[in-house]
Amino acid sequence: MRFLEACARRPVDATPVWVMRQAGRYLPEYRAIRDKLSFIEMCKRPDVAAEVTLQPLRRFDLDAAIVFADILLPLEGMGIGFHFVSEGGPVIDKPVRAAADLAGIRALDPARDVPYLIETINLVRRELADSVPLIGFAGAPFTLASYVVEGGHSKDYAAIKTLIYSDPDTFDRLMRMLSDAVVAYLLAQVDAGAQALQLFDSWVGWLSPYDYERHALPYVRSVIERVKGRAPLIYFANGAAGMLPLVATAGSDVVGVDWRSDLDRAWAELGDGIAVQGNLDPVVLLGPAAAIEPRVADILHRAGARPGHIFNLGHGVLPSTPPDNVKYLVDAVHRLSAAS
Amino acid sequence: MRFLEACARRPVDATPVWVMRQAGRYLPEYRAIRDKLSFIEMCKRPDVAAEVTLQPLRRFDLDAAIVFADILLPLEGMGIGFHFVSEGGPVIDKPVRAAADLAGIRALDPARDVPYLIETINLVRRELADSVPLIGFAGAPFTLASYVVEGGHSKDYAAIKTLIYSDPDTFDRLMRMLSDAVVAYLLAQVDAGAQALQLFDSWVGWLSPYDYERHALPYVRSVIERVKGRAPLIYFANGAAGMLPLVATAGSDVVGVDWRSDLDRAWAELGDGIAVQGNLDPVVLLGPAAAIEPRVADILHRAGARPGHIFNLGHGVLPSTPPDNVKYLVDAVHRLSAAS
Repeated sequence: MRFLEACARRPVDATPVWVMRQAGRYLPEYRAIRDKLSFIEMCKRPDVAAEVTLQPLRRFDLDAAIVFADILLPLEGMGIGFHFVSEGGPVIDKPVRAAADLAGIRALDPARDVPYLIETINLVRRELADSVPLIGFAGAPFTLASYVVEGGHSKDYAAIKTLIYSDPDTFDRLMRMLSDAVVAYLLAQVDAGAQALQLFDSWVGWLSPYDYERHALPYVRSVIERVKGRAPLIYFANGAAGMLPLVATAGSDVVGVDWRSDLDRAWAELGDGIAVQGNLDPVVLLGPAAAIEPRVADILHRAGARPGHIFNLGHGVLPSTPPDNVKYLVDAVHRLSAAS
Repeated sequence: MRFLEACARRPVDATPVWVMRQAGRYLPEYRAIRDKLSFIEMCKRPDVAAEVTLQPLRRFDLDAAIVFADILLPLEGMGIGFHFVSEGGPVIDKPVRAAADLAGIRALDPARDVPYLIETINLVRRELADSVPLIGFAGAPFTLASYVVEGGHSKDYAAIKTLIYSDPDTFDRLMRMLSDAVVAYLLAQVDAGAQALQLFDSWVGWLSPYDYERHALPYVRSVIERVKGRAPLIYFANGAAGMLPLVATAGSDVVGVDWRSDLDRAWAELGDGIAVQGNLDPVVLLGPAAAIEPRVADILHRAGARPGHIFNLGHGVLPSTPPDNVKYLVDAVHRLSAAS
């Protein structure tokens, strides 16, 4: 399977490609289900989550599936309640701002807390058989902590940063609890059949390298150490173009990079011992094919002949993306990379 | 004057420091005026704009003043109407989405369109005498275009990017008109007495290096070429940590960098022929002094002994910043850099 070969930096016949948020709102068949069920209901019904996971595979020649879930799912079992407001993203019921707020948080028990996810992975693996591998995923500790502390999305991440500056012990305790939960959550997915893992550090780009190195990276490293060897792991460090040499020390097999660096420069900074995933600007998929092709070719050219490149967007596919453009992208990656 | 010496990469007795948005809402004396006047009224009344420009200089030992204004001010005279909604940022009356939308746009005539800004600069220069230099500023063409096309702030810059992909000629025409306006606007500020200039490319970090190089950088370069030699120019390229070697080719005397890179790495990528401004995370100023000092020391250490570093935040000071922390910062920069 091309995707797993590329994770191991072994040669492939064409560059593997998948798309972050490929199971999502840009697909009419997804929206048809979403019209009837809430996002969380979709996650918690294994039949629905499995169906939605497989939808993009039926349309496009993708090289991997990724289980339909949300990075916040493990929080509920830990005693950190949240809900989604329509179009507004997640809201944490009681954001953590001080030591006392940690009192109600408990360890994650995947069998008790996320049985639906385990069942979804079972169902998907049965359907996929050995066609393409299934990726499981989790939020990285800092990204999860940013939701838990900020209470949702943030404009400036002022609450979590001031917790770091003012009360580093409480921040550290929260990060350890989240790291343990992420490890349990990822291992449960591997046990259920996930063949690769992605750790989403979606908001780590808001940290300076100074604070990333001291207050986010050590926890990522600890998570990866405890998962290492069970399945290839992709660490997606969004917004981290200015600190890729630090990102490389997290220890992942693959680093996912956003679209804010040229892939050759990014790879040079990460080093040859790491595979690289990325990195087309997702907005390109809103444009005409004439705009897609040269930008895909540029990325493939920068990846060059060395093995270990997985093509992806530099962030999730936008809901307004025409599905035909995703098909165009996937086919162009295979066509252009097989020819070169 | 330390600031101008550092712009020219000449040795100074202590690192000069100023703070983006230093004339702003974090100061109670600013809020007292803002309570009575709208933001635009403040910009358009030279007595008020001059007073607000000088407020932070009375409190802190800053090495430069920056004229109180807004990057959107030149748009009005060009026939691109806009207004501010409270707390929600600017709204462009008729966003440009197609060639026909360019019809009403005319060249900027600073004497006709922004006489208040010229008068403000006159007033401030008279007050400052030769104490510290006054910086004039403008938005860079892509950043201005992003407002004109998106209609305001944007989550993903999809409208301006799809204009680039779908109708590059219209995008190019808009960018040329904005570039000409920026040149006229900057030169009028120099003629009025501004001793340095800053070009704010606040949203250029949303572009991939591929699109930055083709669709933003050439216009910045053209602006800088036409202003060059009249006053030292700082190009603040926000979010551009992954493409600093490209940013260096814009031709500015100084590059302002955000807080997402370590200053030594950023400077190495920009090259020794350029001075560097930055780059403390503005959120640090919400924290205790104990968090400020090591982060300031780290930046000064990374700047090292070579001349050409201007200390600043990596983005504008946040409205919730305690003024005492700005004082602590300014004094710490002088104290730590003079001692080293």
